[in-house]
Amino acid sequence: MAMWIWHFGDFEMYHNLRLHMRRDEFDHQFPPFWRLDDCYHNVVFRKEVTTAEDGHVRVNARYQGMLEIDGKRYRLSDSWGDAVTYPLPAGRHVIEAKVMCEDLPCFYMDGVVETDGTWDACTYGGPWLKAGCSPMYSDPEANPAEFPFVREPLVPVSAEEADGGLLYDFGRECFGEINVRAVKDSVKVRFGESREEALSDEAILQKHEAGFTDRVSVSFSPCAFRYVWVGPALPVEAEEQLLDVTSRGSFRCSDERLNRIWDVSLRTFSLCSREFFLDGIKRDRWVWSGDAYQSYLINRYCFADSAIDCRTMLALRGRDPMTTHINTILDYSFYWVMSLQDYYMSTGDADFIRNVWPSAVSLMDYCLARRDGNGFAANEGNGWIFIDWAEMDKDTCVCAEQMLFMRALEAMQALAAIVGADAGRYAALFNDLREKVDAFFWDDEKGAYIDSYASGKRNVTRHANIFALLFGYTVGEKRERILRGVLLNDAVTAIRTPYFKFYELDALCDAGRTEEVTRRMLAYWGSMVDGGATSIWEEYSPDEPMEAQYGMYGDRFGKSLCHAWGASPIYLLGRWYLGVKPVKPGYRAFEVRPQLGGLEWLEGTVPVGNGEVHICLRDGKCTVTATVSGGTLCWQGREYPLEAGVPVIV
Amino acid sequence: MAMWIWHFGDFEMYHNLRLHMRRDEFDHQFPPFWRLDDCYHNVVFRKEVTTAEDGHVRVNARYQGMLEIDGKRYRLSDSWGDAVTYPLPAGRHVIEAKVMCEDLPCFYMDGVVETDGTWDACTYGGPWLKAGCSPMYSDPEANPAEFPFVREPLVPVSAEEADGGLLYDFGRECFGEINVRAVKDSVKVRFGESREEALSDEAILQKHEAGFTDRVSVSFSPCAFRYVWVGPALPVEAEEQLLDVTSRGSFRCSDERLNRIWDVSLRTFSLCSREFFLDGIKRDRWVWSGDAYQSYLINRYCFADSAIDCRTMLALRGRDPMTTHINTILDYSFYWVMSLQDYYMSTGDADFIRNVWPSAVSLMDYCLARRDGNGFAANEGNGWIFIDWAEMDKDTCVCAEQMLFMRALEAMQALAAIVGADAGRYAALFNDLREKVDAFFWDDEKGAYIDSYASGKRNVTRHANIFALLFGYTVGEKRERILRGVLLNDAVTAIRTPYFKFYELDALCDAGRTEEVTRRMLAYWGSMVDGGATSIWEEYSPDEPMEAQYGMYGDRFGKSLCHAWGASPIYLLGRWYLGVKPVKPGYRAFEVRPQLGGLEWLEGTVPVGNGEVHICLRDGKCTVTATVSGGTLCWQGREYPLEAGVPVIV
Repeated sequence: MAMWIWHFGDFEMYHNLRLHMRRDEFDHQFPPFWRLDDCYHNVVFRKEVTTAEDGHVRVNARYQGMLEIDGKRYRLSDSWGDAVTYPLPAGRHVIEAKVMCEDLPCFYMDGVVETDGTWDACTYGGPWLKAGCSPMYSDPEANPAEFPFVREPLVPVSAEEADGGLLYDFGRECFGEINVRAVKDSVKVRFGESREEALSDEAILQKHEAGFTDRVSVSFSPCAFRYVWVGPALPVEAEEQLLDVTSRGSFRCSDERLNRIWDVSLRTFSLCSREFFLDGIKRDRWVWSGDAYQSYLINRYCFADSAIDCRTMLALRGRDPMTTHINTILDYSFYWVMSLQDYYMSTGDADFIRNVWPSAVSLMDYCLARRDGNGFAANEGNGWIFIDWAEMDKDTCVCAEQMLFMRALEAMQALAAIVGADAGRYAALFNDLREKVDAFFWDDEKGAYIDSYASGKRNVTRHANIFALLFGYTVGEKRERILRGVLLNDAVTAIRTPYFKFYELDALCDAGRTEEVTRRMLAYWGSMVDGGATSIWEEYSPDEPMEAQYGMYGDRFGKSLCHAWGASPIYLLGRWYLGVKPVKPGYRAFEVRPQLGGLEWLEGTVPVGNGEVHICLRDGKCTVTATVSGGTLCWQGREYPLEAGVPVIV
Repeated sequence: MAMWIWHFGDFEMYHNLRLHMRRDEFDHQFPPFWRLDDCYHNVVFRKEVTTAEDGHVRVNARYQGMLEIDGKRYRLSDSWGDAVTYPLPAGRHVIEAKVMCEDLPCFYMDGVVETDGTWDACTYGGPWLKAGCSPMYSDPEANPAEFPFVREPLVPVSAEEADGGLLYDFGRECFGEINVRAVKDSVKVRFGESREEALSDEAILQKHEAGFTDRVSVSFSPCAFRYVWVGPALPVEAEEQLLDVTSRGSFRCSDERLNRIWDVSLRTFSLCSREFFLDGIKRDRWVWSGDAYQSYLINRYCFADSAIDCRTMLALRGRDPMTTHINTILDYSFYWVMSLQDYYMSTGDADFIRNVWPSAVSLMDYCLARRDGNGFAANEGNGWIFIDWAEMDKDTCVCAEQMLFMRALEAMQALAAIVGADAGRYAALFNDLREKVDAFFWDDEKGAYIDSYASGKRNVTRHANIFALLFGYTVGEKRERILRGVLLNDAVTAIRTPYFKFYELDALCDAGRTEEVTRRMLAYWGSMVDGGATSIWEEYSPDEPMEAQYGMYGDRFGKSLCHAWGASPIYLLGRWYLGVKPVKPGYRAFEVRPQLGGLEWLEGTVPVGNGEVHICLRDGKCTVTATVSGGTLCWQGREYPLEAGVPVIV
């Protein structure tokens, strides 16, 4: 199948730049505070090919350039209507297309030779890499500079008179465009994720006023809303714009609240999955590496769409030279490296790893160059040490950050092995760091890792300890002390963000505490959906009334009520309850180790490579069917191989 | 004066990319074969300022962004019609404008605080640099994304019927746009630098056919021509588009042919001076570092427009990482470094040097990393070893290239001293290289430097020997042997390009042979202008009929007949005959050492910093008047200080 092709990574740079231009709030644009790279604008595409029969090729480019067939130069048209056809006799040919434009340079050929991922592309001086392409752009009239969202009409479930206008309720969190017809001089529109926000006469993020001079209607840039207030009272048309992807995973169980949590999580995750994984759809609508890291893992258990993983990783990394950490956050650089290893495990896509390996090395070099005298990733010169929106002693050097540093060094070892590079350097760095972390941060009296040693406060929060468990950096009795003394200890300040709940519950599951996790999911996410949330919030406290929690970052309605990092139940239920994980890259081997976690019954589907595995635990029986081979069911201490299409009932 | 501001270097990246998209020939675009960088698209501008009185600022941005005054955020309008005015009380303020767009991000403020080169700009993570700006963009409605060429109507001097159409002769080489009114169905247009080219029915570079469907007229992209053939016979409108600059230098002498050479050289140079210094206006219309190096030196003696120097150097360098040499040519990387030192000498602009110093270091690191085992800049892995369009033994390692390498290392020493960096490293490298060049390339029997030692051919061309003289790498008797045995020896193949004639005649002047240089200028350039050339050609042989010399690069009319490197008589006559050179950076001190070079009389003007110096040699008398102080007249072994406005007559 012929597809539009571009220079590897350039589609992502192009759309990433443009996506990050779209954040506007309080009537001003809000650009990100990090460098954003654009695509290259001068690219050569190349293929050596032997054709069996005389034939023709049709060529097209966006937008200008030159075609060379066997050294002879031809015109490249810039619109499909003008597409030129050239004869290509049977035999060996070298075809080069040199495309240059201010926009995203890309190229299309069909006929006896077709453009696809087997072509090479370079930017003159950079390495030759396999061209980027996507089945989204297989139509010769498609335009890779435009992202093909699915557009569906949105109909409000109710409208009521309010504040001299109409308040529309679309029934659930949406992302779309509102269009108002010009029957009056001008119109005011307020978008709210909550009813209160749409009705507020205070400053809210999305409040617009537009005149109708010479226009029959006004469209407002796509944004997040459940409620839309329009004054004066005018009819609106609304259109949702979503990524063209559906869930291959599913989950149902005996607890209807948990089912509702899974559904709302999926809606949340679907809304935040666009060109790239976004943090949230109201704000920032940016791509953040820490948020994305969780999205990659959630993605495994629903869409299993590796294309959005790739797009997001490439967009986040940008180009060399590194001048700040990814998103300016030290942790987020580490997550980026970790995500490569997870991606490889999900897909077995070594080509992608090879293409980005030089970027991983230079990113890690950037991190290594900024270590302190002890070899730690310290505060000084390292940008923003985020970890979580939580009180933490961040004096000089933060333990949770070192945990991520170690995990990233482990990932570098694994990646080096994939691409055939020297892994020893990273192994040595890891071993050294691991010893030092225990020496500096482990408090044997408290039975926990402390936040930081510099201040002398020896403060304990959950974060570093969660990572220590999750990444397997503690064993035996020490592990048990952390579990009981920190994770299961109510005296240690609770995690408030779904972001860190992800890791906490993941660690608890890993420690076999799924029943506790069920309770916590129901208490936290359950409380949110009971309260009427149609998407999961950026931050939440079950102890306060929901309507008292809309504020964040100093703004009365600043909190995002639809945040991707809230969708972790999809991951937790798929990973630990349905119990599926890849054992070999690309699910060539996978494990199914289901457990009820205190539920009466559960069933669901998890994507495994090109197939799916369906699991049902009910009435003391475990039934597992995979559409592909390679799986192993682990049930009550025994292992059962899974053959494609053959149910195993035990 | 308020001016639009942009991130340092970004205006140049932006226009350089777009300029290089414009080469089209034989009905296809012809993109350069090196990486081209674009401007950044996410920029912050900043100024801390204390205002004396309450007032207002008016702000505008291209095209989107956010204004922060003392931490409070405001809207940035994207059109001057919507410009917003904000109050600014007396006192200390921090003003930041965060501008992001797909285009060139820039910002304008007037009122009690104005945007200009005192503002800082950065791209988040990159260093804070003084903002770029230009008096070309002081109007609040100006758009730095458009280059403000001066547009003048062009009127043909004749039209004759030919080939079923009309052949217009514009009387001299032009660069402009042709517009044809739609009185027929379609029109064919052929552009020729020569009459033969415009009348050719063979493939020529600029031959277009356009239909008039739904159009009242057709415009053809600006290109080079003296002759334009239009068929069928239709009236045309033509408009010249030139850089808004005039010559501050002048030259007249007793030889009318030399006066004509100076005039035609100036016309040539004016046509090739646009956003940047181009090689030629028919082809490539690209920015080449070797060509530009000569343009910087020619510029000193006519426009003395340092702005175009800066623009060209920034455009050529592009961004890190270096992945190829500048224009893919090793020599051209060295010329780039050399040009910085010359620029500093012309202007004394240390700020510019400081801003580009990191780029100079990384460029030189790139060169140093590619040395061979002997420490030479060798062929292997070094891209294109150009030197000149001449037969030369380029086996492995070329002597002329090492001469440029040495000269670039000397320039790095000088630049390091300007910015306060360590010059010693470059001094050591220079000394080492100089010894090795003499050991490997000097042939004492031939009394000359050989092209290359690897082949064993021990071939001698003029190039390395010219550089050895010009850069002062030989002294005493050795110098004299090179002069007589190579430069004044007709048995050594003559230089054919004006490009290398520049260096040859410069070296001869330096050796006191101006009378020989006069003869050679008259023989070479004189022959061209006698033959009717209205601009200087890319390459020329006085021994062949002009109409037999239109071809180059395998194309019948491939040669550029208007090539900047042909304009060197402006440099030679200003530098050696009028005899002016800077002695201290920015002409704070300058030398005037006029000589007749065999002419009866001469007079002229040379720009010296903010002033000019006028020199007249006539009737055995030397009269020199400078509008600024700092000069020294050197005449017949004596020195005379020059005071502003006071003629010295000796």
